[in-house]
Amino acid sequence: MEQFEIIEGNVTSPKGFLASGVHIGMKRVKKDLALVYSQVPAVGAGVFTTNKACAAPVIVSKENIKDNQIQAIIINSGNANACTGQQGLADAREMGAITAAALKIPEENIIVSSTGVIGVPLPMNLLKKGIPQAVAALSAEGGGSGAEAIMTTDTAPKTIGVVVEIDGKRVTVGGMAKGSGMIHPNMATMLAIVTTDILIEADYLNDLLKEATDQTYHMISVDGDTSTNDMVAVMANGLAGNEIMNHQHPQRKEFEQAFLYVHEYLAKAIVRDGEGATKFIEVAVDHAPNVSDARKAVKAVLTSNLVKTAFFGEDGNWGRILCSIGYSDANFDINKIEISLSSGPDLVKIVEGGQGTNYQEESVAALLKHQDIKIHVDMNNGNERAVGWGCDLSYDYVKINGAYRT
Amino acid sequence: MEQFEIIEGNVTSPKGFLASGVHIGMKRVKKDLALVYSQVPAVGAGVFTTNKACAAPVIVSKENIKDNQIQAIIINSGNANACTGQQGLADAREMGAITAAALKIPEENIIVSSTGVIGVPLPMNLLKKGIPQAVAALSAEGGGSGAEAIMTTDTAPKTIGVVVEIDGKRVTVGGMAKGSGMIHPNMATMLAIVTTDILIEADYLNDLLKEATDQTYHMISVDGDTSTNDMVAVMANGLAGNEIMNHQHPQRKEFEQAFLYVHEYLAKAIVRDGEGATKFIEVAVDHAPNVSDARKAVKAVLTSNLVKTAFFGEDGNWGRILCSIGYSDANFDINKIEISLSSGPDLVKIVEGGQGTNYQEESVAALLKHQDIKIHVDMNNGNERAVGWGCDLSYDYVKINGAYRT
Repeated sequence: MEQFEIIEGNVTSPKGFLASGVHIGMKRVKKDLALVYSQVPAVGAGVFTTNKACAAPVIVSKENIKDNQIQAIIINSGNANACTGQQGLADAREMGAITAAALKIPEENIIVSSTGVIGVPLPMNLLKKGIPQAVAALSAEGGGSGAEAIMTTDTAPKTIGVVVEIDGKRVTVGGMAKGSGMIHPNMATMLAIVTTDILIEADYLNDLLKEATDQTYHMISVDGDTSTNDMVAVMANGLAGNEIMNHQHPQRKEFEQAFLYVHEYLAKAIVRDGEGATKFIEVAVDHAPNVSDARKAVKAVLTSNLVKTAFFGEDGNWGRILCSIGYSDANFDINKIEISLSSGPDLVKIVEGGQGTNYQEESVAALLKHQDIKIHVDMNNGNERAVGWGCDLSYDYVKINGAYRT
Repeated sequence: MEQFEIIEGNVTSPKGFLASGVHIGMKRVKKDLALVYSQVPAVGAGVFTTNKACAAPVIVSKENIKDNQIQAIIINSGNANACTGQQGLADAREMGAITAAALKIPEENIIVSSTGVIGVPLPMNLLKKGIPQAVAALSAEGGGSGAEAIMTTDTAPKTIGVVVEIDGKRVTVGGMAKGSGMIHPNMATMLAIVTTDILIEADYLNDLLKEATDQTYHMISVDGDTSTNDMVAVMANGLAGNEIMNHQHPQRKEFEQAFLYVHEYLAKAIVRDGEGATKFIEVAVDHAPNVSDARKAVKAVLTSNLVKTAFFGEDGNWGRILCSIGYSDANFDINKIEISLSSGPDLVKIVEGGQGTNYQEESVAALLKHQDIKIHVDMNNGNERAVGWGCDLSYDYVKINGAYRT
């Protein structure tokens, strides 16, 4: 059904985008500075953390993106520049200014991002030397290096590309992300950077990004904590040569699908890379009275420590799933609820009419040995649905998070 | 400052209350049926779970308490009668009817409660034989047995009593509770039953209980999950002989203090008995713009898996504490936040002006070796405060909850 083609792409797959990833000494040996640059001014859109303890770069980037004009994104890893007060804010602005000067573009057209340890001042001397290196290293093949340079505790870089034909033109969307890993989550900002060469109206891009964020990044959960630095940003530079994409464009749905796919891919990749995780869990709620109720129920199941530990223990504990939906704010009728578990072709209905079915314990036990498990909740109470993704809660989560900082 | 005396009491300490705890075969050997009875009709008040998947006995008890007249509370452990459909509702009503017949009081004056496994029908044959045994065993010394009989995974019964002088009369408040343990939390309803011989207006008792619940049971967190069967119930039988207690009574504050103490004691006892827990954590937020903001911040810190695992690992990770306050809905100014950790006489300020202080790692490390730890958050932004209690997140939590049901 998809109208788009998936490619082994990244942020430099769309026309006119260059990127680099270099090591400037914030981390011991790994790359720690990424730059993504459009050769022409681009339309920008961003969604930022709502955490009130948001980091200095978030404040600066929100200011800069107000006019929807962005031409470059500079990201360091190893230091979050969060909880660093007025100095942090000055440092974030200077990081932008240095980048702007090196690229010869206006300061206001830059998004600044930092991920790493909280509460330590940015080493500005390293950035002063390093940013020009990142600019010098920019290339149309640099997307992979950029994806490496934003990693903190991720075990692998996360990149994706899709191609879709709009107005007979080849339109490419590329992306990279880093995870809110389960290892050192306070070093673990969730970042996603998406580039595209589509020509698009700024308002429409903003709407699309908001909807994509609601359906993807807002529907994943590793541990329920929200970082001070979370950010999703998009640059669209218009070089594909299509008629301008907007709410009236006849191929609007095709682009939306492709755009959404990139964000969903990156969001899922973040969840899969939670190192403490032994299971990847998809929760789908169908036939809900409205989308908001469906999402509330999905999130309640995904964030319940009792459900998460049950899956770690490979226990098909329907009472915990039902209980978590029960304390969500979602509207539903308990007597209509059906719940099934599935993995691949295997499916077992464990709840019907709000009560446990007489399922075979062995079939559920066999199913739960798989790594990818889906929980299907049917509310039988409307026509809306929502899907979300999470993981189990393991010994390693406790170990990793309890032992950090020593 | 307290105007009341703490005694080694329980639900039969106030005048005119009898109780019993017997073994009727729902659990293998331990007591599994508790009855609390007032020799005269009493004013009743209750607060029940808001979980939409609430259990049958909750539905029946909410109906019966509407007129604020309650004379007995019957509670079985071992089976929650939750997610049991129409049969469960009929069983809960029959459990009340059997108790009413045996006590020769109206069915509507009984609170029915069940705690234990979800999704299994109540063994009514055991209750038919057992309830008359519980009635026969009623005694003025039965409070301790009653507290034993409501235990599921609790490691110890939880009881308390206080005495306060009102109008020159000795007024007693007694209580018992069982925990939302960390071991088998889906068997782990939180129940608290409080009795008192004070003469009190029903509306005033309802107001007091609501406020006490908001300040105590609603401010504890073991794992953030809310049970299908949670209940707090109070019976006040008026035998103390005081002038009727109400909003105008001159000694109103004295009684409020005593009543609140009982609930706070029981709430803390529930948290302390989370078996996976190795630390007891108190979070106090001071100088908040309003109580609601203070409570939101307290709960965000208490329920953050990152904060909880940090304390398990004895890591004074101020970034995680600040971050969790940041994503709560609380209003605050990050630049005014101060955070201190204390245990007994030791206190270390770890955050000032929203940034880490230059505290000695060793003094924090030494402090965190204690079992009881307080987190003090000063918002410097108003005059309201809130306090809550929780625990850390340990290997045992994962082990216990992952291994259950096998």
